[in-house]
Amino acid sequence: MNDSYLNFVNSPFGARLARSLGLPKPEVLHRYRADQPEFGGMVALGAGREPHLLDALANLVASIGVTSVAHESAGLWVPLANRRGLMTGRFEAADGGPHGRLAALLFDASGIEDSSQLEPLHGFFHDTLRSLGKCGRIVVLGRPPESCANPRQWTAQRALEGLTRSLGKEARRGITSNLVYVERGAESGIEATLRFFLSPRSAYVSGQVVRIGTVNTANNPSLPASASAFDWTQPLAGRRAVVTGAARGIGAAIASALAAEGAHVIGIDIPSARDALDATLRQLNGTALAFDIAAPEAPAQIAAALDEQGVDIVVHNAGITKDKTIAKMTDAAWQHVIDINLSAQERIDDALLAAGILRDGGRIVAVSSISGIAGNLGQTNYATSKAGVIGRVQSMAPHLRARGITINAVAPGFIETQMTAKIPLAIREAGRRMNSMSQGGQPVDVAQTIAWLAHPGSAGVSGQIVRVCGQSLIGA
Amino acid sequence: MNDSYLNFVNSPFGARLARSLGLPKPEVLHRYRADQPEFGGMVALGAGREPHLLDALANLVASIGVTSVAHESAGLWVPLANRRGLMTGRFEAADGGPHGRLAALLFDASGIEDSSQLEPLHGFFHDTLRSLGKCGRIVVLGRPPESCANPRQWTAQRALEGLTRSLGKEARRGITSNLVYVERGAESGIEATLRFFLSPRSAYVSGQVVRIGTVNTANNPSLPASASAFDWTQPLAGRRAVVTGAARGIGAAIASALAAEGAHVIGIDIPSARDALDATLRQLNGTALAFDIAAPEAPAQIAAALDEQGVDIVVHNAGITKDKTIAKMTDAAWQHVIDINLSAQERIDDALLAAGILRDGGRIVAVSSISGIAGNLGQTNYATSKAGVIGRVQSMAPHLRARGITINAVAPGFIETQMTAKIPLAIREAGRRMNSMSQGGQPVDVAQTIAWLAHPGSAGVSGQIVRVCGQSLIGA
Repeated sequence: MNDSYLNFVNSPFGARLARSLGLPKPEVLHRYRADQPEFGGMVALGAGREPHLLDALANLVASIGVTSVAHESAGLWVPLANRRGLMTGRFEAADGGPHGRLAALLFDASGIEDSSQLEPLHGFFHDTLRSLGKCGRIVVLGRPPESCANPRQWTAQRALEGLTRSLGKEARRGITSNLVYVERGAESGIEATLRFFLSPRSAYVSGQVVRIGTVNTANNPSLPASASAFDWTQPLAGRRAVVTGAARGIGAAIASALAAEGAHVIGIDIPSARDALDATLRQLNGTALAFDIAAPEAPAQIAAALDEQGVDIVVHNAGITKDKTIAKMTDAAWQHVIDINLSAQERIDDALLAAGILRDGGRIVAVSSISGIAGNLGQTNYATSKAGVIGRVQSMAPHLRARGITINAVAPGFIETQMTAKIPLAIREAGRRMNSMSQGGQPVDVAQTIAWLAHPGSAGVSGQIVRVCGQSLIGA
Repeated sequence: MNDSYLNFVNSPFGARLARSLGLPKPEVLHRYRADQPEFGGMVALGAGREPHLLDALANLVASIGVTSVAHESAGLWVPLANRRGLMTGRFEAADGGPHGRLAALLFDASGIEDSSQLEPLHGFFHDTLRSLGKCGRIVVLGRPPESCANPRQWTAQRALEGLTRSLGKEARRGITSNLVYVERGAESGIEATLRFFLSPRSAYVSGQVVRIGTVNTANNPSLPASASAFDWTQPLAGRRAVVTGAARGIGAAIASALAAEGAHVIGIDIPSARDALDATLRQLNGTALAFDIAAPEAPAQIAAALDEQGVDIVVHNAGITKDKTIAKMTDAAWQHVIDINLSAQERIDDALLAAGILRDGGRIVAVSSISGIAGNLGQTNYATSKAGVIGRVQSMAPHLRARGITINAVAPGFIETQMTAKIPLAIREAGRRMNSMSQGGQPVDVAQTIAWLAHPGSAGVSGQIVRVCGQSLIGA
């Protein structure tokens, strides 16, 4: 729960000592606070040949109210911004000296069609990276490789992933670097995702690749006609959200984040956690439902509890670990973990979907784990269940598209919780430091990522796995 | 080039010292030697409900001539094996004591259709893992998740990835663990891939997922009517293989491995490496071509040199690094790395494919890198180029299918070469130890992986990225 090294090296004495000893100095990450402006500072824009997304980016810049500067690679930006009446200057390479001038670097690579056209990416980040301030943001935008008809174009777009991940590892200082692939025709749907990646809400999300697809507006009754019609401060007002495992830790943080965005939260947890669950939900003016999601009658119970008013958002957060090497793992430990972490999610969704309780235009978000991606020693059961969650997201997304329902997963890395506080010190320190932020994440980092996926503006984001890991080294 | 720690802890004194100090003791990996039998020992078989691949596995077991024992989960195996006249016993859980009895664990999970059916995997590995000897092999077989119509089935099949990776991290002792997804209808095409994963040839390949697809035999003139018709000792006899960057290091190892399998190798390298290139190819009775693959005239030169007899295998191994943080990286360093490592491959393949010089049924193998998957500090240019190689493989595979040509990539992790010998000690040690083998790989490990992908029996393997990294932790 408490990273004392991070606190120490950011104290005046600790900082001096760390400097003289050459110790790593993790940045105190800027996190979202409702009482502070979410966006500010200057954004530098760069672009490759024939960028397709500058109009959409101009809408974004206008909407979040930041000042922009155009790098020489984005010559089209200044006249475009001027036509829109946006405050815009030119980025001068000579300005590149002191840290801190820029809050974000945005590069539109959508028009790049061949590996020989990648050079402007080098020019832009070469000139601007040193001017990006602490906890700055890097977002590269491209086209989904698999949607490119031409292999040369697919190749060049796929190459962006190596660049974006390398930038995240180089930049340090709490800077995140992410890649957003925008499908042709999905340009008007980028704002919720770009807001997330530019905001302090994504403090611990780096090295990720997200795809934004087109949306069938006919199936999205709750989708306003244009992005400008979203209420960006209370986007979930009037929506109902179920969160499993909501009594404490990451689940309580998720419930809290969704409630802060305006949702009515129905929190579920096991009967033995009833007091904590009641306390959490009372604070949020939500509803507490104490029962075991693994019980055979649970899907019907949840369906019955939600039936009258339905639900818009389902967050499958409940999960357990029972770690042992497989030779020592009992059959019960295997089955219990698979059942709670994976099969119960399947049973609950089937019940809610079959009865139409999860409404059209709804959102399902499941919690996976880096262990589900990379496997882990002593977690054959847990990793199998969390890899299955990835399969669930990938397999269900196309099925749910016709109803405008999205399904996605977050995969937390090392998050500071009561669970991780019990890990032996040496392993805990390795987990904390082996990522681009040199620190563990907070439950709120997972919660804010889920809030973005639950947002009405994220209708084009489905079937994706987003790691909340500070760009952990661990991945395979 | 030389891992002195590995040598030391495997000496009698070093082993004693390491044991008393609790130091890690990396296993000396068994590697393929032409003068030693490739397969031996006993293979334990396990299976989930309604396994689809037991017939194909019986063919394999008969072909490689090993003894099998059936775990109780694979009750169908004994009568099947008996009908085939194979030596077969039953695995008894009570036998599970001492290490070393088993050479490989094979589990057929192809019939699993729901997460509630995963339990036999636990039962099998719980019972057998401790009986698997040093440098043993684990292979789990399933169906490609994305080919499953039912989301429940897709989910359960996808879950296998978390299990297989966790087993690799638990098993240690030089044991590899890999997952092979076999498309429906591709059952007869599994032998070359299973031979590779069961053999010492795959010593440094672990934690990987490989898909075997169906093959249009009409487009594969060189494909024999059945797997039993392959010459497993000289599978590349009569074939011609081009290898770029062949003068030394990994390239020379690739040339050597392909020649050992019977191929005539045409090695290419830059004029300044002509002496080393000539020496390497002379040893292999191959052909040396000294020119710069990045030169504008190179594709035409290569095409002209190969034209008369054509070519069956193209290995894009040539690559360079020019590491610097992006703020310090010159434009020339960026462009040169992208051009050699990525664009030159595109130009050469286009020339060979357009003129039909790469024959139908041919093989393209490109060398990517873990940096291309995970990004790397100081390697924005290199990681971008190597991520682009992944895009090239994924985009070209469907285009080449009609001609029976496969395209795949290997992504080496830490391989002991002259290049890695120059890395500072602390970083080199981290790279060496942060994998399930606790050691770096050898050039031959990359070469043998390429030889498998170049094999005529690998016709169903295309569009894949196979890491040769000892299951390195690094992945994102």
